[in-house]
Amino acid sequence: MPQYTPPLRDMQFVLHELLDATGTLKALPKHAEVDADTINAVLEEAGKFAAQVLLPLNQVGDREGCVLDKTTHEVKAPTGFKEAYAQYVEGGWAALSCDPAYGGQGLPVTLNQCLYEMMNSANQAWTMYPGLSHGAYEALHAHGSPELQQRYLPKLTSGEWTGTMCLTEPHCGTDLGLLRSKAEPQADGSYKISGNKIFISAGEHDLAANIVHLVLARLPDAPAGSKGISLFVVPKFIPNDDGSLGERNPIFCTGLEHKMGIHGNATAQITMEGARGWMVGQPHKGLAAMFVMMNAARLGVGNQSLGLTEIAYQNAVAYAKDRLQMRALSGPKAPDQPADPIIVHPDVRKMLLTARAYAEGGRAMSMYTSLQLDVELASEDEAERQAAADEVALLTPIIKAFITDNAWIATSHCMQVYGGHGFIAEWGMEQYVRDSRINMIYEGTNTIQSLDLLGRKVLADGGKKLKAFGKKVAAFVEEEGVNEDMQEFINPLADLGDKVTKLTTEIGMKAMRNPDEVGAAAVDYLRVTGHLVFAYFWARMAKVALEKKDAGDPFYTAKLHTARFYFAKLLPETAGLIRSCRAGLEPLMAMDEALF
Amino acid sequence: MPQYTPPLRDMQFVLHELLDATGTLKALPKHAEVDADTINAVLEEAGKFAAQVLLPLNQVGDREGCVLDKTTHEVKAPTGFKEAYAQYVEGGWAALSCDPAYGGQGLPVTLNQCLYEMMNSANQAWTMYPGLSHGAYEALHAHGSPELQQRYLPKLTSGEWTGTMCLTEPHCGTDLGLLRSKAEPQADGSYKISGNKIFISAGEHDLAANIVHLVLARLPDAPAGSKGISLFVVPKFIPNDDGSLGERNPIFCTGLEHKMGIHGNATAQITMEGARGWMVGQPHKGLAAMFVMMNAARLGVGNQSLGLTEIAYQNAVAYAKDRLQMRALSGPKAPDQPADPIIVHPDVRKMLLTARAYAEGGRAMSMYTSLQLDVELASEDEAERQAAADEVALLTPIIKAFITDNAWIATSHCMQVYGGHGFIAEWGMEQYVRDSRINMIYEGTNTIQSLDLLGRKVLADGGKKLKAFGKKVAAFVEEEGVNEDMQEFINPLADLGDKVTKLTTEIGMKAMRNPDEVGAAAVDYLRVTGHLVFAYFWARMAKVALEKKDAGDPFYTAKLHTARFYFAKLLPETAGLIRSCRAGLEPLMAMDEALF
Repeated sequence: MPQYTPPLRDMQFVLHELLDATGTLKALPKHAEVDADTINAVLEEAGKFAAQVLLPLNQVGDREGCVLDKTTHEVKAPTGFKEAYAQYVEGGWAALSCDPAYGGQGLPVTLNQCLYEMMNSANQAWTMYPGLSHGAYEALHAHGSPELQQRYLPKLTSGEWTGTMCLTEPHCGTDLGLLRSKAEPQADGSYKISGNKIFISAGEHDLAANIVHLVLARLPDAPAGSKGISLFVVPKFIPNDDGSLGERNPIFCTGLEHKMGIHGNATAQITMEGARGWMVGQPHKGLAAMFVMMNAARLGVGNQSLGLTEIAYQNAVAYAKDRLQMRALSGPKAPDQPADPIIVHPDVRKMLLTARAYAEGGRAMSMYTSLQLDVELASEDEAERQAAADEVALLTPIIKAFITDNAWIATSHCMQVYGGHGFIAEWGMEQYVRDSRINMIYEGTNTIQSLDLLGRKVLADGGKKLKAFGKKVAAFVEEEGVNEDMQEFINPLADLGDKVTKLTTEIGMKAMRNPDEVGAAAVDYLRVTGHLVFAYFWARMAKVALEKKDAGDPFYTAKLHTARFYFAKLLPETAGLIRSCRAGLEPLMAMDEALF
Repeated sequence: MPQYTPPLRDMQFVLHELLDATGTLKALPKHAEVDADTINAVLEEAGKFAAQVLLPLNQVGDREGCVLDKTTHEVKAPTGFKEAYAQYVEGGWAALSCDPAYGGQGLPVTLNQCLYEMMNSANQAWTMYPGLSHGAYEALHAHGSPELQQRYLPKLTSGEWTGTMCLTEPHCGTDLGLLRSKAEPQADGSYKISGNKIFISAGEHDLAANIVHLVLARLPDAPAGSKGISLFVVPKFIPNDDGSLGERNPIFCTGLEHKMGIHGNATAQITMEGARGWMVGQPHKGLAAMFVMMNAARLGVGNQSLGLTEIAYQNAVAYAKDRLQMRALSGPKAPDQPADPIIVHPDVRKMLLTARAYAEGGRAMSMYTSLQLDVELASEDEAERQAAADEVALLTPIIKAFITDNAWIATSHCMQVYGGHGFIAEWGMEQYVRDSRINMIYEGTNTIQSLDLLGRKVLADGGKKLKAFGKKVAAFVEEEGVNEDMQEFINPLADLGDKVTKLTTEIGMKAMRNPDEVGAAAVDYLRVTGHLVFAYFWARMAKVALEKKDAGDPFYTAKLHTARFYFAKLLPETAGLIRSCRAGLEPLMAMDEALF
């Protein structure tokens, strides 16, 4: 069975040494009391919960999956999932970063992010149950009427009830403008909702007493397309005024999908037959309200893949140190053994270091973004809030797509380290590959992320958000330009920064002639930009490590070696990506559709 | 359910228009009678068998898997597998390229390769049963005593019996020198064999009356390591002299692995408790004898991934033409529909064209190599045989690793085209991804292939084999250097050829100082070389297409567009790979093992 050691040291490094998180948090009145000791204590307990409670259920969940009783429409989650969820609620984890007005602990989003990284390492499928709930909490918190908030938020905060996002329908996923579910207004101010939803994660289960579905549907007078969609809260059981559960609402699970991975999470087909719902936000503005959830969910998906990359790495390292096979080409390294441990082989190390560099780089980028999100949510300075919001907007699609693509590469490499044993369920490695695959698809496919980045976040504002981030990079390059020891990091970082600037301008020019050029360039562009962000954080981490490495803590030596590996072996990918990107639209569109 | 149209037109293009296969075959007395009509007729029938008999069983096999009865040690293959195998035997397919001396049809290996590509498209797990048998046939045909050949080859040729390769043990896969299974000589010339094998594909099943295991084991006086391994034939039932089945040999399936993919094939744990075996070839020379099978198997694994790439492509195209979602960024393309078919989106086309270019490039490379194998096996000219053997040796690791890595990329892309539906078992796409994953591992991991290429095939002979291939490339570049229309293909081909030459020299120099440099460079090097070979074949295909495109057959237009796509969007990957490769060993080895 896979093992897991919560990466507390690296999280503390990123929070305290790289980002000075408490410094940032102190400036926010809401979080002024959050000190390093509190943070570290929460992380330690979170790590225990993940490793001790969730990890042992990960393979069980994959093997058993969820079971639907077609008569009652009830779903049984895998063995142990319900009990683990009770522990989660009991431990107050659901409330960690929720609003104290509804019983939350009001801690920073950044801490919640760390909790989720570890839970995702231990058990992505299980973690989706509370993860979806938190998304529903956020949408209601941002857009619900005071009455709806009073009715639902305390239960979502405690974790007593869970939530879902009901968007996709059989004929539409990416293109929600096509959706058909209907909402008929009723005399009492509620709505009767009918329609069919698919791919509803955590859509039905036995973990919680009630499930709060957030459902997109159309009012009778709705305009066609995405401007005619409204958002509704549709509970499984309609709550009475005293908070107890009333009648069963006709919103039923009518099927479960058989999937490549995340078997432990119920991916439900949902049928609504005149289910009662209440509107969240304004009529026809449901998509915007849902996007509150969606953006948080996209950061959450990046976090899922970060978790998988970390645990895949840890286990592959353990195997590579243990498994004896062949001799090093340069001669035996363990002459007293029948063969050398496979970690002596350069390509095994390359696979391991790839996963390590992607995990640590992803962690730095994700935690930085979470901290900016805390500033966006809690700063009392309007300009500061806006700057933080811009940066979060820019980095969200990169976190979602770059980290999930990297996890697909990294988990596959880690599995490869095991040879044939990697392909066998028993060792647990192939599950990480399968689970990670969905992260490239849901909450907007990675192609959609790339279009969001290039089209909406970069070109639409004339590169303003990108330039603001570029200024931080340039300032760091400037600052370290005289530091001899930093040249190996600063030079390629500066070079890539220049190339991204040029590439952006070039694509912008082409896009004015033909907007499809954006679609042709976007995926390569996101990956190049992802490397720029990684190079920036790896250079900054290298700087901290260089300053501290002589103090004797081997953590800094390892950080420095990993930084060097990243610049030597992973960053060069950008050379090919830029060429492919610059080749433009023509090679993709020249062939007539009929010839495919 | 996935659909499949056998790619007969493209196979005929490669055989007749690109390679002039009948021209090459005519020069071999053994195959002088094989004309284009015969080839085309066989391909057509093979395609029907694959599409009509094997394809409908692919998802069934994945769902049901194989079932072991632990009492009888018998394994039941999925529903329909046994009946399909009976049709395979009945149709004479097992005998296609086998020696007429044992009942074979004596047709070229190249035809068998085409048969297998189509069977792999339709059902990789099923195809492994006859595939392993053919490997056993080849090892016995090359190294068995006349008596063993007489006893086993007719049954393997007809397909009445199947075969396996029993190499791996729990503690050794790549490093067979460590293996422990023992063979005790008996007075009658046979051996008593004991030990445990794992990962034995097609290791036990109900498709055939008998299973002929080829087993590696050690004689009592065997030297340690890989020079003390002998090869034995160990039948499940010991054949009587009249060919009927005698006593059950104590070689038992004691477990089946639960795997990521190829569920329909029984991956057996095999226990031998004094099973009777007969030596194949010379004492202690078993590994060399087994390598006859292994090299053929490596070509076969590349062929598995070629098959998966093709069928994934076909289905993703059908979905992309059918699924309506969003409008093209440049404006509606199907204004009468609620949305455009997703094939209008440039990145969807990029994913599809990637799969297409990898399928067609892989087919050209594989069929070319098969044809060289036919020359190696059947030419009466010693020099010609040697030249062909060298080329097959050079291309084998590239076919195995490059095509299987490409299939991992391509099947994942094709799944991505389906969005969320790709992750659902029902559509069949995620199975192609899972099935394809093993191809990067078995028959020597892709890292092992890269070491074989760079260490053994390129550096060990001072680049002789590579130079011979390079001469063909150079001759083509020279020949087309004056052809204006070919510049877009010839220039990047020539450029990459130069770069590979330089890179090879550079690695060779470094390796003299430290042999581990080979291990650090090998994987990147193989991928760069793979692109060189692809660029050569894509340029040659473009030439044929350019010459014929005005005749009105849109096949040539499509071929030309795909060639252009390959050069514009896929070949540029080499720029990053070469940089990463040149970064060498240091970034991989600098970090102490303890710090991982």
